[in-house]
Amino acid sequence: MRLSRYFLPVLRETPKEAEIISHQTMLRAAMIKQASAGIYSWLPLGLKVLRKIEAVIREEQNRAGAIELLMPTIQSADLWRESGRYDAYGPEMLRFADRHEREMLYGPTNEELITTIFRDGVRSYRDLPRNLYHIQWKFRDEVRPRFGVMRGREFLMKDAYSFDLTAEGARHSYNKMFVAYLRTFARLGLKAIPMAADTGPIGGDLSHEFIILAGTGESAVYCHADLVSQKVPGADIDFDQDLSGIVQKWTSSYAATDEKHDQARFEADVPADKRLSARGIEIGHIFYFGTKYSEPMGARVQGPDGQKITLQMGSYGIGVSRLPAAIIEASHDASGIVWPVPVAPFEVGLINLKAGDKDTDAACLDLMGKLETAGIDVLYDDTDERAGGKFATMDLIGLPFQLIVGPKGLKSGEVEVKDRKSGERTTMTPDAALQKLVDSVRTQRVLA
Amino acid sequence: MRLSRYFLPVLRETPKEAEIISHQTMLRAAMIKQASAGIYSWLPLGLKVLRKIEAVIREEQNRAGAIELLMPTIQSADLWRESGRYDAYGPEMLRFADRHEREMLYGPTNEELITTIFRDGVRSYRDLPRNLYHIQWKFRDEVRPRFGVMRGREFLMKDAYSFDLTAEGARHSYNKMFVAYLRTFARLGLKAIPMAADTGPIGGDLSHEFIILAGTGESAVYCHADLVSQKVPGADIDFDQDLSGIVQKWTSSYAATDEKHDQARFEADVPADKRLSARGIEIGHIFYFGTKYSEPMGARVQGPDGQKITLQMGSYGIGVSRLPAAIIEASHDASGIVWPVPVAPFEVGLINLKAGDKDTDAACLDLMGKLETAGIDVLYDDTDERAGGKFATMDLIGLPFQLIVGPKGLKSGEVEVKDRKSGERTTMTPDAALQKLVDSVRTQRVLA
Repeated sequence: MRLSRYFLPVLRETPKEAEIISHQTMLRAAMIKQASAGIYSWLPLGLKVLRKIEAVIREEQNRAGAIELLMPTIQSADLWRESGRYDAYGPEMLRFADRHEREMLYGPTNEELITTIFRDGVRSYRDLPRNLYHIQWKFRDEVRPRFGVMRGREFLMKDAYSFDLTAEGARHSYNKMFVAYLRTFARLGLKAIPMAADTGPIGGDLSHEFIILAGTGESAVYCHADLVSQKVPGADIDFDQDLSGIVQKWTSSYAATDEKHDQARFEADVPADKRLSARGIEIGHIFYFGTKYSEPMGARVQGPDGQKITLQMGSYGIGVSRLPAAIIEASHDASGIVWPVPVAPFEVGLINLKAGDKDTDAACLDLMGKLETAGIDVLYDDTDERAGGKFATMDLIGLPFQLIVGPKGLKSGEVEVKDRKSGERTTMTPDAALQKLVDSVRTQRVLA
Repeated sequence: MRLSRYFLPVLRETPKEAEIISHQTMLRAAMIKQASAGIYSWLPLGLKVLRKIEAVIREEQNRAGAIELLMPTIQSADLWRESGRYDAYGPEMLRFADRHEREMLYGPTNEELITTIFRDGVRSYRDLPRNLYHIQWKFRDEVRPRFGVMRGREFLMKDAYSFDLTAEGARHSYNKMFVAYLRTFARLGLKAIPMAADTGPIGGDLSHEFIILAGTGESAVYCHADLVSQKVPGADIDFDQDLSGIVQKWTSSYAATDEKHDQARFEADVPADKRLSARGIEIGHIFYFGTKYSEPMGARVQGPDGQKITLQMGSYGIGVSRLPAAIIEASHDASGIVWPVPVAPFEVGLINLKAGDKDTDAACLDLMGKLETAGIDVLYDDTDERAGGKFATMDLIGLPFQLIVGPKGLKSGEVEVKDRKSGERTTMTPDAALQKLVDSVRTQRVLA
């Protein structure tokens, strides 16, 4: 993509309303723009990150056997009366009447709707277990939206719902999502720690939040320090096998959010030099709630012996639109964002130091073509801005690698490659640069 | 994908509420399920079709130089007051107040929001022209939603917005989208005819609707019969060249929706044997409206000579979620849907005639593995349903090819390949079947 044809209205100043680094850099890097309080447009650069994150989530959901569908944003109030949640849910639910005065709402979550879909679609025990998920916009009318997309009102969520015949089966479905989440967040370059959590308006008695540590986190968290470096399961994990050992390994060490924190147990269980207390950002939340929805909504199937079985359910959320911000909180420096390759909006930023110079233009186009042929996503700064501005923009938007091409270097057959993370700049031939970039990008695309 | 692990709750009976064939088959094939009046969930099979359609649209928008972003579903009423449309827009706009009593709405279209994004992002004539698009859910509170997703209330739309310095430039941007639409619909297997159209609440004085002919269409249309078979531009089309010749070729023959129809001109312009009057379904609509939004909303840039230029704008919509239904209206038979390969939810349906039989199971798994390795999307019916039911389901859901494997055939080294469209069934060796399927799918994936 040529920058001269792209839409990247970066800001030179940090907007005053942005308090945390991710909000500041997302606005400055023209990833998002506020449309109204807590509601954002995703500009082209931000949308590319969001889509790459979605793709990783989808891949790991599918790997764990979950099946994608898509439920609408608008739901009927009557549906929520079936479960009894319509009156219980607070003012965060956006409610309104349509032109026929029917009561409707903008879905903040989808337990009720998916229960009707599944209930109406299956008859027999042979149709279970299943896990159905979607990635859809939700609305929660936060009283004080803030921190940009970190705590917005309209937000993108991946929510999965499992249906099982037995509590034991439901526990296995829960464990599958537990493991899928470990893999998903690791692939996004995040160290997420599962922590015992309250279940809130979703309900149930088994629940974990997946938390990343960041100074700007909204809640205090406490855990065993070793959890931060614990290795996640590989891509070859068999989701049909017993996963309880893996879950056990991740849940046997102390880890809790402040609502669940027990200081005495923390001190008894964790040696003093391993006691990590920090701020955390919630990026995922999983629940097992048994028959809370299936019972009142009549989600039952015929068992092998003819009797009716009320389904065991769980739900599993990832805050998709919060993740770009969470990744930035975990990966930035004074110059801007430092994207991990798997979610970078472009993988290489190509800087032409003298746009309009025939040889430099030709060299850049040649390099861009070769990188794109190799499947690398390139943003080519072909504008006539001065070099300093180009460097600042590339550092700000945080592409993992920069390829810097100028007339002087070209005369001695050289270009420069900059690694955004280390800041290291290396001079080499264009061919060597191509090779290095293709190798580095390919290596870093996948989880080690 | 194994059917035994998928979610495909097909219906044996045609639901009474469905009047047209696309609505009937989409419900029966478990592509969609109604959530409330005019609001649908997209079940796994339907979502796959929707995503494939989206991908074709995206590819052709990008090819024409449009840049993707994503605006939110919820907008503020104040934004619509800037353009003067808030009071002008009828009861189809879903309006409500948030918890702070701020007036909001669920966007039925995005001219206002994109104008603020562009206005705030650009300063100079050098930042133009641009075309920004998104694919996002919209809401129009139809008084009588019907025909399933054909006239729903919550619907997915691709809307693009062009910004130019001059009326001439805007006309070129309009022509680019005109050509992109011709290509898009042809790739989806549709014969879409551009017709002069009214501009309605969008405004402006130049507008074309893209219409496909179908007996169940909502409006009467009149055109020169030759338009139906006119060839669309190839993938090598250069969007920077003058496109007015192509547009001229498509607009010089008579073609009009009933609002614009002039019977006298129709009879004068079109020979009697070429006068086609039929029912049509609108699948795209493009508009040039000059400064209708940029003027009141102050979308101006600095020109080369320092003076301010008010931007020339157009907008370009495709009814994405209506397209699966439109394609079905154009491509079905008595047994069900007949998907063109580019939008088929799966490309091959593999039918095991004796699931549980060791040799048949092994042969099927081997064939599925080989097809998937070749990049073919396979739905494998490994259930214990009887053969007749399996055939009926495969015909209903309309996968382009069926590969039928049974113990008897296997003993003589044979399987069967069925072409869904022609109904032709051919017996051959498994290897020959693989070759034929891979070749056929690859050939039919792209626009000839």
